[in-house]
Amino acid sequence: MRTLIKHALLSAHPQNSITVKGWVRTRRDSKEFSFIELNDGSCLANLQCIADVGIPGYQDIQKMSTGAAIGITGKLIESQGKGQTWEIQATTLELIGEAPSDFPLQKKGHTPEFLRSISHLRPRANLYGAVFRMRSRLANAVHRFFQERDFTLVHTPIITSSDCEGAGEMFRVTTQENASKQDDDFFGKNTYLTVSGQLEGEAFATALSNIYTFGPTFRAENSHTTRHASEFWMIEPEMAFCDLEGDMNLAEEFVKYLVQDVLENNEGDLDIFYKFVDKDLRQRLKFVAERPFQRVSYTEAVEILIASGEQFEYPVEWGVNLQSEHERYLTEKHFKCPTTVYNYPKSVKPFYMRTNDDGKTVTAMDLLVPGIGEIIGGAQREERLEVLEANMKEHGLSKEDYWWYLDLRKYGSCPHAGFGLGFERMLMFVTGMKNIRDVIPFARTPGHCEF
Amino acid sequence: MRTLIKHALLSAHPQNSITVKGWVRTRRDSKEFSFIELNDGSCLANLQCIADVGIPGYQDIQKMSTGAAIGITGKLIESQGKGQTWEIQATTLELIGEAPSDFPLQKKGHTPEFLRSISHLRPRANLYGAVFRMRSRLANAVHRFFQERDFTLVHTPIITSSDCEGAGEMFRVTTQENASKQDDDFFGKNTYLTVSGQLEGEAFATALSNIYTFGPTFRAENSHTTRHASEFWMIEPEMAFCDLEGDMNLAEEFVKYLVQDVLENNEGDLDIFYKFVDKDLRQRLKFVAERPFQRVSYTEAVEILIASGEQFEYPVEWGVNLQSEHERYLTEKHFKCPTTVYNYPKSVKPFYMRTNDDGKTVTAMDLLVPGIGEIIGGAQREERLEVLEANMKEHGLSKEDYWWYLDLRKYGSCPHAGFGLGFERMLMFVTGMKNIRDVIPFARTPGHCEF
Repeated sequence: MRTLIKHALLSAHPQNSITVKGWVRTRRDSKEFSFIELNDGSCLANLQCIADVGIPGYQDIQKMSTGAAIGITGKLIESQGKGQTWEIQATTLELIGEAPSDFPLQKKGHTPEFLRSISHLRPRANLYGAVFRMRSRLANAVHRFFQERDFTLVHTPIITSSDCEGAGEMFRVTTQENASKQDDDFFGKNTYLTVSGQLEGEAFATALSNIYTFGPTFRAENSHTTRHASEFWMIEPEMAFCDLEGDMNLAEEFVKYLVQDVLENNEGDLDIFYKFVDKDLRQRLKFVAERPFQRVSYTEAVEILIASGEQFEYPVEWGVNLQSEHERYLTEKHFKCPTTVYNYPKSVKPFYMRTNDDGKTVTAMDLLVPGIGEIIGGAQREERLEVLEANMKEHGLSKEDYWWYLDLRKYGSCPHAGFGLGFERMLMFVTGMKNIRDVIPFARTPGHCEF
Repeated sequence: MRTLIKHALLSAHPQNSITVKGWVRTRRDSKEFSFIELNDGSCLANLQCIADVGIPGYQDIQKMSTGAAIGITGKLIESQGKGQTWEIQATTLELIGEAPSDFPLQKKGHTPEFLRSISHLRPRANLYGAVFRMRSRLANAVHRFFQERDFTLVHTPIITSSDCEGAGEMFRVTTQENASKQDDDFFGKNTYLTVSGQLEGEAFATALSNIYTFGPTFRAENSHTTRHASEFWMIEPEMAFCDLEGDMNLAEEFVKYLVQDVLENNEGDLDIFYKFVDKDLRQRLKFVAERPFQRVSYTEAVEILIASGEQFEYPVEWGVNLQSEHERYLTEKHFKCPTTVYNYPKSVKPFYMRTNDDGKTVTAMDLLVPGIGEIIGGAQREERLEVLEANMKEHGLSKEDYWWYLDLRKYGSCPHAGFGLGFERMLMFVTGMKNIRDVIPFARTPGHCEF
C-alpha cells in the first residue's frame, strides 16, 4: 500500500514500514548515504529520505535525478533536520521512471511564459502544484457554500442558440466546413458557446427557488490582458422571491466564506504565495475575512469620486460606467474595505435588470474588493412582463427570440435576483497570482489552444 | 423572512408565524375557507394551507390558480389530514404573480415529448423537480467522494485542438464565417469541443498523484437514441502509481458510494421514481449497494457467453467488442450482480491502454450494472514510451501531435490508471428515467438546441 506524502507528514507516530511514491525534487549524495527530497503532489511539502549506500535499489541512485519517479519503502522516523517533523530511513528504493537531463524543470527560476509553454509539466513545479490544489479546494468550497444553504446545482447548457444579450463576443459551434449555411448545420440553426447561464438559471430558480450554476463560459474577444481568457469558469446563483438587498447579502456572505475557507483549509499551500507571489496577500485576505463590507449607491459613489479631487484617466459624471480606477479608489482609498455599489444608471446595464421607481436606475450591484476591483456583478431581475418587454424593445431585442424567458414573467412571476462570480478572478484574489493564464490548467487565449 | 417549505415540513414544533412563498399546485374553495397546496421546489412535498374567507389578501383568491406565485403568512400547526405533519393556518395571503389559464402545467399527464418543448417550465412539474434536485445531490456526492479521498479536481479544457483519438465525432469551434481558413481563425488552428479530458488529466495525475475531472463533454454524432446527447457531463478520475486492479477497486467503490448516497440522502425524491417511473428501482439500487461486485476477464466472459446457449443478435467470438446484449446477459442473467470485465483484446481499444504481457490484450476494464450495461469504462494507461510510440504508429497517429503526452512518459513516467463515468447515465440509473433528454436541464441533440 502506498501512503500519500501528505498523510505521512501528518502521521501521529513513527511507523515501521511505509511506502511512498513520487517524483524526486532534489538529491544529495555523500559517501555513506543519499538525501532525497520526494514530492507526490498531495501537498506542497517534500518528504525527506535518507538512503544508505547499498540498500536494495541503491544501484540505480544515479538515475534518481530531479523529475524521476521513484518508490521508497522504509521507516518513518522523527526528523533530525529542522522544519520537518518526519523523514524516511529507507530500506528499499525503486526506480520507476527516469527523467533524462533535458527535463525542463531541473532548475528553478523559469519565467511564467516559459512554464505556460510546458503547461503539461508545470503542475510538477511547487508554485503551480499549490495553485491547482488551491483551485480544487476553492471549487469544493463553492459547492459546499451553496449545498449547505439548500441551493440546487443546475448544469445550464454550454452550446446555446441565445446570447444573454451583450455579455460578449461568442464562438460559433458547427459541424460544417462552410459555417454560413445554418439550416443544414447540426442543430438546424446557428449555435454558440455560452457566455452566461443566467437566463436558463432564472428558469430553474422560478421552479426550485434557490439554484446555482458552476460551469465553463466563453468569450471570443481579442483581449490580451492578464485578466481575460477565452474560456473560464463562472458561478451564478439565482434566488426566487429575493430582492437586491438579499442578493447583496448573499454575495458578501459568499466572498467572506470563500476567503475564510482558504485561510483555514489551505494545507500549507498559502505559504508559497505569501513568500514568493504577494507579500501583502495575508493581510488582504484577513482584511476581507474580518471587516464588515460597505454599501454605497452608484449616485453616492459618483459624488465621492467627484469630491475626491483625484485625477482619473476617465472623468466621472453621473451616467458613466465606473472604470477599474474608480472602483479601486472606492474600495482601497475611500472606504478601505470591500464595497458593494448598487443602483446603476439604466443606460449602462442590460435589459433584464429591474427598473427602479426613479425610472433612471436599475437594481444592479457590483462587489468591489481591494487589489482587484469588481469581483461580483449581479442584479435583481425585471419580473414585470410589460416593463421587461418595453426594455427589450429599447434594446432592439425581439420577443420571439426570448419567448421562453418572457414565459417566466407570464406564469407565476416573482421577484428574483442573482449574481455572477468569475472563478479564476476569485482564485487570483486568494493566491495573489497576477495572470489568469497561470491559474487555469491549460489556458485558452487568442492564438493559444495548445495541449 | 421567508422559510423554505422543506424546512417548514421538518419543523420540530409548531410556529406562531412563518412566511412561505412558492407556486400554487392546487386550490379547493369551500364557503368558509380555501385549501391551497403550495410548492417552492425546495422539496417534492407541498405544504398545505387553510385560508379562511376574509383574511387579508383573500380578495385575490380567484387569481391564486395553479402556477401562480403567492406568499402565505400564518401559523404552522399540526396537520389534521393524513400524510402531512404540518400545515399552515393562514393569517395573510399575498398574490405575487398570476398564472393565466393557458399555463401549460395546469393538468397532469403530459407526455415527456411535450414537456421537453417547455424545458423552461418543466422543473415546476413534480417529477422534473425531483430529477433536477437528484442531479444536484448526485453531483455533490461525486465531489464529496473524491475530496474525501484527497483527489484534486482539475478543470480540463473544453476547447481543444487534440481529439483524444477516436472517442467520437467533434464539433468545430470557430469565429469565422467560412470555417475552412484555419490559420486565420481565433486560435490560429482548427479547434474543437472536447470529447474527453483524459489526456490532460493524465498530465495532472503525473504531478499531483490523484485527480478527477467533472465537466461537459461533446459528441457531434447523429445519434437519435434515448441514451445519447450531444452535450453531457463526464467524471474522469486518474491515479498515478496505480494499476488496473486499483482502478477497478476505485470504480466499484465509487458506484457503491453514489448509490448508497442516493438511498440515504434523497429527501423524499426517490418516492416519485419508485411510484411512477420504475417499480423495480428500489430493488435495483439496493442490489448494487449491498452485493459484492464480480470480476471476470474478457476471455472468461466470452467463454461464458458462448457456453450460455443464448441466441444473441451479434454472435460472440474472441476478439469482438461486447455488445449491450452481451453485457446485460453477464450482469443480469449469469452473475446477477454488477460485473467488471477486464483485459480486452488490444484490437478493439484505443492506443493509450497498456499492453499486457500476452501481447494481444490491454488493461481495459468496463463496469457493467444490471438494467443498463456498461456504466464505467477505464484502463491502466501505457506508461512505457517505446510501447506507446509503437501503438501510436499502429493507429496512424503522429508523434508531433502528441508531443506533450509523450513527454509524460519521457520524464518521470509511472504506472497510472483512470476511468470515465457518464454523469447522466448514472443519474438515469439512480432515477429509473429512460431518456437522457429528461435528466438534462436543456438537452442538446441533433436538430435540437432550444432555449
